[in-house]
Amino acid sequence: MKKFFAELIGTFILVFVGTSAAVFGGGLAGIGITGIALAFGLTIVASAYSIGTVSGAHLNPAVSIAMFINKRISSKDLLIYICAQIVGAFLGTLALEGLIANIGVVTDNLGQNLFNGVDAAGAFLVETILTFIFVLVIVTVTSAKKGNAKLAGLIIGLTLTLIHFVGIPLTGMSANPARSLAPAVLAGGDALSQLWVFILAPILGAVLAALVGRYLIGTED
Amino acid sequence: MKKFFAELIGTFILVFVGTSAAVFGGGLAGIGITGIALAFGLTIVASAYSIGTVSGAHLNPAVSIAMFINKRISSKDLLIYICAQIVGAFLGTLALEGLIANIGVVTDNLGQNLFNGVDAAGAFLVETILTFIFVLVIVTVTSAKKGNAKLAGLIIGLTLTLIHFVGIPLTGMSANPARSLAPAVLAGGDALSQLWVFILAPILGAVLAALVGRYLIGTED
Amino acid sequence: MKKFFAELIGTFILVFVGTSAAVFGGGLAGIGITGIALAFGLTIVASAYSIGTVSGAHLNPAVSIAMFINKRISSKDLLIYICAQIVGAFLGTLALEGLIANIGVVTDNLGQNLFNGVDAAGAFLVETILTFIFVLVIVTVTSAKKGNAKLAGLIIGLTLTLIHFVGIPLTGMSANPARSLAPAVLAGGDALSQLWVFILAPILGAVLAALVGRYLIGTED
Amino acid sequence: MKKFFAELIGTFILVFVGTSAAVFGGGLAGIGITGIALAFGLTIVASAYSIGTVSGAHLNPAVSIAMFINKRISSKDLLIYICAQIVGAFLGTLALEGLIANIGVVTDNLGQNLFNGVDAAGAFLVETILTFIFVLVIVTVTSAKKGNAKLAGLIIGLTLTLIHFVGIPLTGMSANPARSLAPAVLAGGDALSQLWVFILAPILGAVLAALVGRYLIGTED
Repeated sequence: MKKFFAELIGTFILVFVGTSAAVFGGGLAGIGITGIALAFGLTIVASAYSIGTVSGAHLNPAVSIAMFINKRISSKDLLIYICAQIVGAFLGTLALEGLIANIGVVTDNLGQNLFNGVDAAGAFLVETILTFIFVLVIVTVTSAKKGNAKLAGLIIGLTLTLIHFVGIPLTGMSANPARSLAPAVLAGGDALSQLWVFILAPILGAVLAALVGRYLIGTED
Repeated sequence: MKKFFAELIGTFILVFVGTSAAVFGGGLAGIGITGIALAFGLTIVASAYSIGTVSGAHLNPAVSIAMFINKRISSKDLLIYICAQIVGAFLGTLALEGLIANIGVVTDNLGQNLFNGVDAAGAFLVETILTFIFVLVIVTVTSAKKGNAKLAGLIIGLTLTLIHFVGIPLTGMSANPARSLAPAVLAGGDALSQLWVFILAPILGAVLAALVGRYLIGTED
Repeated sequence: MKKFFAELIGTFILVFVGTSAAVFGGGLAGIGITGIALAFGLTIVASAYSIGTVSGAHLNPAVSIAMFINKRISSKDLLIYICAQIVGAFLGTLALEGLIANIGVVTDNLGQNLFNGVDAAGAFLVETILTFIFVLVIVTVTSAKKGNAKLAGLIIGLTLTLIHFVGIPLTGMSANPARSLAPAVLAGGDALSQLWVFILAPILGAVLAALVGRYLIGTED
Repeated sequence: MKKFFAELIGTFILVFVGTSAAVFGGGLAGIGITGIALAFGLTIVASAYSIGTVSGAHLNPAVSIAMFINKRISSKDLLIYICAQIVGAFLGTLALEGLIANIGVVTDNLGQNLFNGVDAAGAFLVETILTFIFVLVIVTVTSAKKGNAKLAGLIIGLTLTLIHFVGIPLTGMSANPARSLAPAVLAGGDALSQLWVFILAPILGAVLAALVGRYLIGTED
C-alpha cells in the first residue's frame, strides 16, 4: 500500500510539474525546449530520491511493464503500480486545470501530447525509439550487476531530459502512457484520438529495451 | 554560534545570488525562467557543500520547521536557525539594494514574490504543493536510513530548480518564508500585503512533507 | 559481438538524438546553443550508463584510436568499434531522414558539420583543440589510477556539452569522425568536401590527448 | 614541472573555452547568460577531472593564494601555479584572437571583464562577494575533513556557473585575476584601466573565504 501512494505521489509530481512548466512557462516561445526538457527530467530526480526509496519511482506504466518482463516486480505489483500511476497522473492534470481556472484564462492546453508535423507513423517511430533509449538506461542503471544505485535517479532524469530535446517539437514527448492519458482524457479532441500512439509506442519501446537490456547488456544476470 | 553564522551566510547566498540573478539578468525576457531556476537551485549546491558541513544548510525556516517536527533539531536550534536565516536574507536583499543604488537605476524590483495571474488561493496552492515536493526530497535525501549524504546537496538544489520552473511565472517561487520576507519588507507594496501566503504556504507544505516522509517513506526510522 | 551492437546502439543514440535535436528544435534561433550542447552531452550520459557497461561507450573513432594508442583496446577491437560506430551513425542519420520525409519538409539539413565563418585552417584548429580537451577528460576519468568510474559518464557528457558551446557556432562541433561522416555522405555538398577536416582534426586532437594523458597526467601508470 | 603544465592547460581551457563561448556565441543576445555561465562552469569540470589529478586544477591565482594561506601549497608552488595560470590564460586569449582573425571579423571583444552599469566600487563589491562564495566552496569541498573528493570538480564547476548568473550582466564575471589579465592586456582600453578591480577584488574575496573556511567551517582541522 505504501508503494501505491509512493507511485501516486511521484507520478503526480511528474505530470503536474512537467505539464505546468510547459503551460505556465509560455511553451516554446517562453520557457523553451531546454526549460521544459529540464523540468520533466528533474521530476524524476525529485521523485527518485524521495518516494523512489519506497517504490523505485517508475512513474510510468511502460517502465513498470519493462520491470515486470525482466521479473523485477510481480504481476500484482504491476497492477498496483499502473493504477497508482494513472491516479497520480489524473490528480496532476486536475491540479493544473484548477490553477488554469484560478487564473481565469481560457485554454485547452493541458500539456497533452499531439502529433506536430509528423503523422501517426512518424509519431509512433519517435516515441518508440526515444522510449527505448530511456528505458534501456533505466533497466541498466538500476540493475544489480550493471547498475549505479546512488546515481541512478540523476542519470535517469537526465535521460528523460535528453529525449525531450527531440520529442518536444514532434510529439510533445510522452514515453509514458500515464503522462499522456490524463491530459488527453481531460482535454479531449485530437489528443484523445491520437492517444493510442502514446500508449502503444512507449510500451513497445520499453519492451524492446527490457529485452536488449537482458540479452545484450546482461542487466538481469 | 557557528551554526548561526553558517545559516546566515548560506541564506545570504540564496537570497542575494538568487534575486540578483533575476533582477540584473533582465527577468523573464533576459536570463529567462531556466536561468533564474538554475541560479536559485545552485545557491543550494554552493551552500550545502560549504556552510552545510556546519549547519546542514537549511537556509529556510520552513525546512528547519520540518526538521524540528521530525526531531532532527532541537527547539533551541530551530530558533537560532530561523533568526540566522532572517538576518542572512535581509543582508542579501540589502546587498542587492546597494548594487541597484550603485547602478543608479530606479526600480522597486528586489526579486520579491508576487501573485502573477493567480489569486491568493491559487498562490497558496502553488506554494504548498511545490514546497511539499521540495521538502519531501530534503527529508528523504538527508535521512540516516533512506538518504544519500554525498549527493544530497546536488539533489536538493536540482529540486529547487525544478519547482522554480512552475513557480516563477505564477508567484516568483518562494517555498521559503525568509526569502520572501526580506524583499517584501524592503520593497513594500503588494509584496508586503501578499507576504502571509509566502510564509504560511511554505510552512504548511513543509509540515506535510515531514509527515509524509516520516509515515510513508520512513525517513525517521 | 556484443561490443559491436553496444557501440552501434550508442553511436545511433548520439547521432540520431543529437542531430535531431538540432534539426527539429529549430537550430540556433529555436533550441539554441545551450539546448543543442546539452542534447549532445546527454547522449553520452545515456549511452555510458547503458551500453557503456558492455563496450565502454566510445561512440567515436577518435576516442577508440586514443584508447588503442594507450593500449586499452586491441587492434581487433579498434576495427570492430569503428565499424560499429560508422554503422550506428548511418542508421542515426537515416532515421533522421525518415522523420524529415514523414513531416514532408524539404531540407538538406541533416545536422552535418560545416565551416561557419572560419576557413579550413580555423575549423581544423577548433576541432583539434576541442577534441583534445574532450579526449583528455575521457582518458583520465576512465583510467584505472586517475579515474572516477562511477561519475565518468556524467563528466564526459558534460565535457561534450562544454566543447559544443564553442564549436556549434564555428563548425557545428564534430570531435567525432563518425558523427560527421554519415550526415556528410547523405547530405553531400560542402559537408562532403569539408569532411576531411572533421575526420583528421578530431583524430589529431585525440592522439595528442592520449599522449598528454599518458606522459603528463599518468593515465596509463 | 608537471604541475606547471597541468595548470597551464587547465587555465587555457578555462580562458579559451569560456571567452570563446561568450564571443562566438553572440553574447547575451545569442548564447545568453545561461549558456555562458554553463560554459565557464564546465571548464572547471573538464579541467578538474583531467589535469586536476596532477595539480588540483586551481586555474586561478586567487584560488592558489587561498590554498597557500591555508597551507595547502608551498610558496614555491604558489609561484609556479600563478605563472602557469598567467601563461595559460594568455595562450587562451591568443587562440581566441587567432580564430577571430581567421574569421576576419573586426572586433575588440576578447571576452574581457568590464564594468557594466556599476562603478568601480560596485564592481569591487560584486567580485569580492561572488569570489568569496566560489572559494568558500572550493576550500570546503577539497578539504580532508569536510570535503567530497569525488564530486569536488562538479560542485566547484556548478558554483562557478552560479556566480556567473549574477556577475555576467554586471562585470562579465571574473573571480579570477588570470582570466581578466590576458584579455585586458590584449584588448586594452577600459579593460586595462579597470583591471585592478579584477585582480584585487577576487584576491580579497578568496582570502576572506580561506579564513572563513578555516575558522568557521573548520576546513583545515
